[in-house]
Amino acid sequence: MAKSRINIAVLGGSGYTGGELLRLLAQHPYVKVKIVTGDKAVGLPVSSHFPNLETFCSLVFQPMDLPKVTQSADLVFMALPHTKSIEPVAHCIKAKKRVIDLSADYRLCEQKTYEKWYGVSHSSPHLLRQSVYGMPELHRTKISRTKLVAVPGCYPTAAILQLAPLLSKRILKPDSIVIDAKSGISGAGRSPALPYHFPEAHDSMTAYKIGQHRHTPEIEQELNNVYGKTSVRAKGRAKPLTVMFTPHLTPMNRGILSTAYGKMTKPITTKALQDLYRRFYRNERFIRIREESTQVSPNQVRGSNFCDIAILADSRTGNIITVAAIDNLVKGAAGQAIQSMNLMMGYPEDTGLTSPGIFP
Amino acid sequence: MAKSRINIAVLGGSGYTGGELLRLLAQHPYVKVKIVTGDKAVGLPVSSHFPNLETFCSLVFQPMDLPKVTQSADLVFMALPHTKSIEPVAHCIKAKKRVIDLSADYRLCEQKTYEKWYGVSHSSPHLLRQSVYGMPELHRTKISRTKLVAVPGCYPTAAILQLAPLLSKRILKPDSIVIDAKSGISGAGRSPALPYHFPEAHDSMTAYKIGQHRHTPEIEQELNNVYGKTSVRAKGRAKPLTVMFTPHLTPMNRGILSTAYGKMTKPITTKALQDLYRRFYRNERFIRIREESTQVSPNQVRGSNFCDIAILADSRTGNIITVAAIDNLVKGAAGQAIQSMNLMMGYPEDTGLTSPGIFP
Amino acid sequence: MAKSRINIAVLGGSGYTGGELLRLLAQHPYVKVKIVTGDKAVGLPVSSHFPNLETFCSLVFQPMDLPKVTQSADLVFMALPHTKSIEPVAHCIKAKKRVIDLSADYRLCEQKTYEKWYGVSHSSPHLLRQSVYGMPELHRTKISRTKLVAVPGCYPTAAILQLAPLLSKRILKPDSIVIDAKSGISGAGRSPALPYHFPEAHDSMTAYKIGQHRHTPEIEQELNNVYGKTSVRAKGRAKPLTVMFTPHLTPMNRGILSTAYGKMTKPITTKALQDLYRRFYRNERFIRIREESTQVSPNQVRGSNFCDIAILADSRTGNIITVAAIDNLVKGAAGQAIQSMNLMMGYPEDTGLTSPGIFP
Amino acid sequence: MAKSRINIAVLGGSGYTGGELLRLLAQHPYVKVKIVTGDKAVGLPVSSHFPNLETFCSLVFQPMDLPKVTQSADLVFMALPHTKSIEPVAHCIKAKKRVIDLSADYRLCEQKTYEKWYGVSHSSPHLLRQSVYGMPELHRTKISRTKLVAVPGCYPTAAILQLAPLLSKRILKPDSIVIDAKSGISGAGRSPALPYHFPEAHDSMTAYKIGQHRHTPEIEQELNNVYGKTSVRAKGRAKPLTVMFTPHLTPMNRGILSTAYGKMTKPITTKALQDLYRRFYRNERFIRIREESTQVSPNQVRGSNFCDIAILADSRTGNIITVAAIDNLVKGAAGQAIQSMNLMMGYPEDTGLTSPGIFP
Repeated sequence: MAKSRINIAVLGGSGYTGGELLRLLAQHPYVKVKIVTGDKAVGLPVSSHFPNLETFCSLVFQPMDLPKVTQSADLVFMALPHTKSIEPVAHCIKAKKRVIDLSADYRLCEQKTYEKWYGVSHSSPHLLRQSVYGMPELHRTKISRTKLVAVPGCYPTAAILQLAPLLSKRILKPDSIVIDAKSGISGAGRSPALPYHFPEAHDSMTAYKIGQHRHTPEIEQELNNVYGKTSVRAKGRAKPLTVMFTPHLTPMNRGILSTAYGKMTKPITTKALQDLYRRFYRNERFIRIREESTQVSPNQVRGSNFCDIAILADSRTGNIITVAAIDNLVKGAAGQAIQSMNLMMGYPEDTGLTSPGIFP
Repeated sequence: MAKSRINIAVLGGSGYTGGELLRLLAQHPYVKVKIVTGDKAVGLPVSSHFPNLETFCSLVFQPMDLPKVTQSADLVFMALPHTKSIEPVAHCIKAKKRVIDLSADYRLCEQKTYEKWYGVSHSSPHLLRQSVYGMPELHRTKISRTKLVAVPGCYPTAAILQLAPLLSKRILKPDSIVIDAKSGISGAGRSPALPYHFPEAHDSMTAYKIGQHRHTPEIEQELNNVYGKTSVRAKGRAKPLTVMFTPHLTPMNRGILSTAYGKMTKPITTKALQDLYRRFYRNERFIRIREESTQVSPNQVRGSNFCDIAILADSRTGNIITVAAIDNLVKGAAGQAIQSMNLMMGYPEDTGLTSPGIFP
Repeated sequence: MAKSRINIAVLGGSGYTGGELLRLLAQHPYVKVKIVTGDKAVGLPVSSHFPNLETFCSLVFQPMDLPKVTQSADLVFMALPHTKSIEPVAHCIKAKKRVIDLSADYRLCEQKTYEKWYGVSHSSPHLLRQSVYGMPELHRTKISRTKLVAVPGCYPTAAILQLAPLLSKRILKPDSIVIDAKSGISGAGRSPALPYHFPEAHDSMTAYKIGQHRHTPEIEQELNNVYGKTSVRAKGRAKPLTVMFTPHLTPMNRGILSTAYGKMTKPITTKALQDLYRRFYRNERFIRIREESTQVSPNQVRGSNFCDIAILADSRTGNIITVAAIDNLVKGAAGQAIQSMNLMMGYPEDTGLTSPGIFP
Repeated sequence: MAKSRINIAVLGGSGYTGGELLRLLAQHPYVKVKIVTGDKAVGLPVSSHFPNLETFCSLVFQPMDLPKVTQSADLVFMALPHTKSIEPVAHCIKAKKRVIDLSADYRLCEQKTYEKWYGVSHSSPHLLRQSVYGMPELHRTKISRTKLVAVPGCYPTAAILQLAPLLSKRILKPDSIVIDAKSGISGAGRSPALPYHFPEAHDSMTAYKIGQHRHTPEIEQELNNVYGKTSVRAKGRAKPLTVMFTPHLTPMNRGILSTAYGKMTKPITTKALQDLYRRFYRNERFIRIREESTQVSPNQVRGSNFCDIAILADSRTGNIITVAAIDNLVKGAAGQAIQSMNLMMGYPEDTGLTSPGIFP
């Protein structure tokens, strides 16, 4: 299959998400990375900043020069910090480039919600309406037709995928949802800080930003969408579903384990729930429904684009419990971004994403 | 203070709980360990099985010979597996010895509940009525007067301590409680098995026995007791409170981080909750109420008898969230056992338990 | 390239090395795994024993039935325990199959050396002379012509690759070599045992089998070969080179970091040594010479077939120091085995082995 | 025993060594910490910076005001960075205070050696002659008589203790010593930086500063002293012993495992070496000689002041190998400092240091 390769730019490529994009793109048969920017690493060879990429990438980190970027690339991945993508995305879209933004800046449909949770004003609200939330399992067709994809956050990827089937069937009481998520520390990025200093984080754990994490509104937006099209915009009408979301910092490099709870609206068995999930995700290459919760763990998806899910009913207490695992840097970031790119470009959806997890 | 030391036996001393008892008792000024049994280590010097105890313990593991035990000791700690303590406890009680049992065999008041969750019949149900649940913060007086203490499980210690103040005030809806607990792997004991094999457990996590863990009924028993004296025995009357309990295996040696959720019955602030907790535990040496959830973590209590707790209200979703951390081998087992011994013997309650946590 | 796929058998496929073979072979374009045996997992689907392989492998573990194996497969990988490969290899070779043995049973040229270190007698000594030590960097041509490859041990892979250039130039005093190696715990296999029980191994380290590890004779055999053809058989002539080898158990899942020391025979600079190494390995796809020792670490090669090496001279003490990192399950086992298979079959040497390391 | 408590100051108390001093001093019966300084934490309660110390320390971090320090304290611990202790030590000594310095500034007898390895000039060289290297096992009498103790570095503590008996008997060839040491990451201090960022350090390892670590000259100074009084000052006479020293960053919170090698001068057995070590350290409370190298590991000494040592002969290669484990923050820093304080003050040497290691 002799497709010509498209030219790629990666902005903000010096963090872990950037490194993971470069790792995965190096193995993708239809693309060529032409330019990588990275503020903290300008002038450094990629292979010295990411020694694992030695022999795979001969680029040097550039400063961010947007005209140069749009000149070099057909498609731009942005792995910039939250609030720093707003302008560059607008610039690249104006230059008619395809953009896949891994920040939160174009994930929320509601400008007000974005501004409330991120504390800045959004200078390109018209693009909020154009952008598509880059979760192929829920928005495959829209992704294949858009120029602007906003890649979901890592926690929301697990949370939405593990809860969507339940909400699509209205089996959960919408005000009862508790999401208790545990993340590896690469999720906090590559900038050293005390909570991520090895002796502070190792052999321990903490719950942080309880009820206040910025990933909360995207989870609620998407689950509301699934939940009977109760639009989050529909003020005054149905009370939108909210979720109690608690992230935990866990002594793992990569991976999220997300445990979600909710009250069942009527009695249901584990078997019926498993059937529902198998049907809901029957054509999904990257979703695996597991019999046992103990088969769902970060070390079974490490380095891969899979989301593994277990689902069960606890009739004694009336709860439904679901456990999901992803690699936060792959399905939770770079892998899902490439999955969207494949859809946008008409490549087979799993191109460059066919590795099993690395276990142990 | 020239008290004479009492003689102690430790049965089942070759596991991690036994080792921790020996470590703590070695530093206790009023006791002397005279005999240690341990099936898997009979004939082995304690200091070769637990090299950390070299120079602290010159005993050799003995086979379990109950007459010899009751002859040698005034007080017996039992760190035997669940279901294996029933007979030895009865024997020692009959011999007029004080017993502190670290298994689950005498924790549940209801014989039927025990038999249902542990799958064996209980041959000494009369002792279930005599035994006291060894949590000094809730049962101090009874402990000081009993001959038989059943030391709480590790998960229940955190869960009960973090929820009791809320239930004492009936601030939580009793059917809304979710306890999502994360335990270090020493909680699974010292017998090797695949889930605890390093490469399986390291850099990963799993949820296990969801809704089915045997610690569930003790949590419910104690929380029901606190919750307006709705006795679990009171069949037909009030519906007893149940809890949704999910344990997780976490890549830590020691420690539990327990995150508990419930719906508030009426609006309340974080500040009011903190005040409630500070009052409820105002005279407790081993409970520390923390401002921030990030200050509550296993590495702040490691090796110590503390239970650290943070509490907060999330008015947006109507939830109350509490996070608790303990060392599962100390406050969750050996330390709490010694705290009960101190009460039984009339020693200052914190004798031998005054070490701060080892951080980092 | 429409090659037809060859049929593969994997014997002893239920351990970590077997799982890694299956992971890598699942992505190899020219092979098809037809049969997998695994004593401890007979009857179990591969994807339930290795959940990471769900959707990649639909086989079920078989009992070891050699006639069936030779009937199904063109090439057999053996991932059996040491001493358990002797017979099956002989059987398969007799049946004219290609064999790649990952045990130690055919690594040592000298029958006596094998019998001394492994404590069993070797029933097929004639095959010891046919087998080729499967390190392509030293024996590429022979591997491409043989039917029987003995894949090097994990420690020897790092040790030989990091020392061969020095010995080829006789820059090191042959009686001064110290190899201090640190291995992740997957190197000990998937059978649970106390030293690999998480709480024993985590957050700690030990040195074991000092001077007595069975990998010692293969390191000496190969380094002697490089060192001026001083054959280990040449008794009475030159004194063969010996190495002081100490392995350490390290709290990592995968990876070996090997630090080797020796006295220089004459003054030499770090720069000259780096040049020597770059020349020695100039055509090697899987060897990367690094400027800094801190760039050499297991997390830069994790999941990949690379061996990263740093080399330096310490003129103050007259030592040469070299640090090497590999993934013990890839370059130290399954990956190197596939590299040999590619040579045996005439495929490009890196087929199926082109992934960069997974970092972090 | 009603001794009055002496008043203590801790300078530079906000790092891990400072925290460990505060933890241990909180349990010491004869001292009272009156003032703690810590540049990065001025104004912060100690118990908010070190939550493990809540209920044990009610002090607030002060800025460093030396007159105030000497007014408040009888004895000053300095846990300042290397090169930052020179002046404060001189000030406190001038004010007739006892000083225990945990930096390297007063460890080396030779001013020139200090200035070469630390890159600054030493403004109080006269005090270098007064200071005593704070290793009680080698300098007990001198420590008990001095006003200024320089506490050994963490790596040197393990290396010197594990090699001293061999050198005292001249059993090792002095130019053959290789020390391959592995340290937990708390050894790098509490300031976040990329190599200590959790995802960089976890599940991996690196060798760093090979042959160039600043702990090298103290190891050589002390081993030369033991080795037949070949003074390092004695230029032109005997060639001083040098050591090849390589530190490694290891994914542990605390602990050093040090593996040291050297060529024997004459044949000797493991048994004879063990006897030598048992004799050499026969009266030492904190040295434990172990039968097996696998009993020597950081998790057996964690939180304690012990140094565990194994010693063996490898007649095949003519090497002697010794393995030592310490807790780098206790015997490698704060604990050894308090051991010296006890000697200086005439307290029993193990006062406040009688805890066994925390295992697991």
